[in-house]
Amino acid sequence: MPSIHAARRDRLRRRLSDLDAPAALVTRLVNIRYLTGFTGSNAALLIGAGGLEILATDGRYTTQSAAEAPDVERVIERRLVSALAARAGEGRLAYETHDVTVDGLAALRKAMPDVELVSLAAAVEDLRAVKDDEEISLLRRACAIADQALAELLAAGGIRPGRTEREIARDLDARMLDLGAEAISFETIVAAGPNSAIPHHSPTDRVVATGDFVKCDFGATNAGYHSDMTRTLVVGAAADWQREIYDLVADAQRIGREALAVAAECAAIDELVRDHIAAAGHGEHYTHGLGHGVGLEIHEAPGLGPGAPGRLGDRMPVTVEPGIYLEGRGGVRIEDTLVVRSDTPELLTLTTKDLCIV
Amino acid sequence: MPSIHAARRDRLRRRLSDLDAPAALVTRLVNIRYLTGFTGSNAALLIGAGGLEILATDGRYTTQSAAEAPDVERVIERRLVSALAARAGEGRLAYETHDVTVDGLAALRKAMPDVELVSLAAAVEDLRAVKDDEEISLLRRACAIADQALAELLAAGGIRPGRTEREIARDLDARMLDLGAEAISFETIVAAGPNSAIPHHSPTDRVVATGDFVKCDFGATNAGYHSDMTRTLVVGAAADWQREIYDLVADAQRIGREALAVAAECAAIDELVRDHIAAAGHGEHYTHGLGHGVGLEIHEAPGLGPGAPGRLGDRMPVTVEPGIYLEGRGGVRIEDTLVVRSDTPELLTLTTKDLCIV
Repeated sequence: MPSIHAARRDRLRRRLSDLDAPAALVTRLVNIRYLTGFTGSNAALLIGAGGLEILATDGRYTTQSAAEAPDVERVIERRLVSALAARAGEGRLAYETHDVTVDGLAALRKAMPDVELVSLAAAVEDLRAVKDDEEISLLRRACAIADQALAELLAAGGIRPGRTEREIARDLDARMLDLGAEAISFETIVAAGPNSAIPHHSPTDRVVATGDFVKCDFGATNAGYHSDMTRTLVVGAAADWQREIYDLVADAQRIGREALAVAAECAAIDELVRDHIAAAGHGEHYTHGLGHGVGLEIHEAPGLGPGAPGRLGDRMPVTVEPGIYLEGRGGVRIEDTLVVRSDTPELLTLTTKDLCIV
Repeated sequence: MPSIHAARRDRLRRRLSDLDAPAALVTRLVNIRYLTGFTGSNAALLIGAGGLEILATDGRYTTQSAAEAPDVERVIERRLVSALAARAGEGRLAYETHDVTVDGLAALRKAMPDVELVSLAAAVEDLRAVKDDEEISLLRRACAIADQALAELLAAGGIRPGRTEREIARDLDARMLDLGAEAISFETIVAAGPNSAIPHHSPTDRVVATGDFVKCDFGATNAGYHSDMTRTLVVGAAADWQREIYDLVADAQRIGREALAVAAECAAIDELVRDHIAAAGHGEHYTHGLGHGVGLEIHEAPGLGPGAPGRLGDRMPVTVEPGIYLEGRGGVRIEDTLVVRSDTPELLTLTTKDLCIV
């Protein structure tokens, strides 16, 4: 039985025939991980007709590459492109124009003067957008770790006046690692009071005070797969303006979740939510896209934002995360990770979205 | 008095006149941070003659960009390049060919059809290689945090039979954060027994046993500046083969440190160390470069490896980190961060390199 990685490489090969290219050079590391299992920090992968599958990496990864990617030919060589050039043959070679730099292209042309280079575009990312059952199961577990970590944090009174954003973030991170996360998905955001109006805020020594919004945006990784969730709480008692924007964001977020469906236009889902917030007079306070795919990267295809191309497909995990940010006062974001399904989307982040007052 | 960032932008302007380009488009985020202080995840910076200094970022970073980069003009716009195109003028524009992708170049050309695009090459990275006193002081503190974390870990008996690599790594990370690190520099490597033969090993649930090498490669960041240090210890008692390779690596590392001098050729320093290890019969077991610059990135200019271009300069911080890896048995790496000085290099990582048996 071919490995899951071999099956993915075969799917990429089928794309190559559409491009009329006999071979592809994959250079984006996360795409190489997807196609081979190799997780090192330096690699290139040549895939072509006739079973051609060569992973090039350097001497630091001799042992690791053999363990992680046993079913492809491996070449250990500091100059990755030169190592693969001789094997690329002639004719057309598709490469990742969204990953290879201008300098990198010059090096490719020098190493492969007789090869016609064409764009592979985001062929691998497109494959990655649709997850298989194992991937969804890894994401489900990553989301469950985040849910449980937040539940434990709250049960322990971990968000309370006197604690700093940084202490809360470290507490949350430690709980995720204790629960089996291999790492945190990204730098945990804990933003209290006026800081909650900064969409991407790094935790500081600001002390949580009564009346603060506390916005927590965080996730765990599990075998490389990322969870992503945001919850915004109030400390002590919620003021009217806080309830107003909380309820508006919660409504908008529900509208976004309910719009997730196979064949739905990505830009249209964003617009639906954006219009709802604008109609309530907060359009200018919602300053980012609605959401994004999630998997081996914390942000990946498909994008859900203004003008985003494409449509949703079955088994695409995405986030839905509208927010309203009032500079100097505070902000609310509510974010879930869900999997698009042919019927109702599957919610992976299960923490309540009722306004939580701690 | 101009800010430290304004002074850096002026230094870049002087480079531009050498390139005969009136303006530069900087897209590498770490370079934008160096030149402006802005730490967001999406930005482009246009710098030109006549005081032209425009930072473009998106709506998530309105507040943050104003706080971090108050002394440049800021444009908030989702399409960064379009936002800057109108301001780039005509004539030549230097851009970062090592950062801009092939797709990115196509977008640049479309947005700026009348501009002649030329390479800025690594002009900003070259500036960054030489640190000012404040940067060195930040690095010194980052290294001190790592030194102290390891000292506390050892004093607490944190490396002992029965503990897993993962537990030790988390312990070390927590100690660095407790000591004021804003983050860890990179995923901490704790590699025990045969795993120590894997140069870049992710901590696993492997339990430390008597007789193991335990290799720890880790660092702290402090205001964006990274420390980097590796120490390899033995648990219980060292076997002869362990002492042999430990002493050889320690000798090689000392030779490398002593060769750090203003105007020394980077490749020659690597060669000196490599020859020493090869003469002892372990050339094939030393599978990576000698070291690298360190600062806002964990790996930056200058490189110290086979064929590395250039020479060292005053106030360049670099690592010196030879290793010997015996597959299936174990490996040793010893790494310091030092600052090249006009006299003796300044050692920033102060933990002893005597063989430590725990």
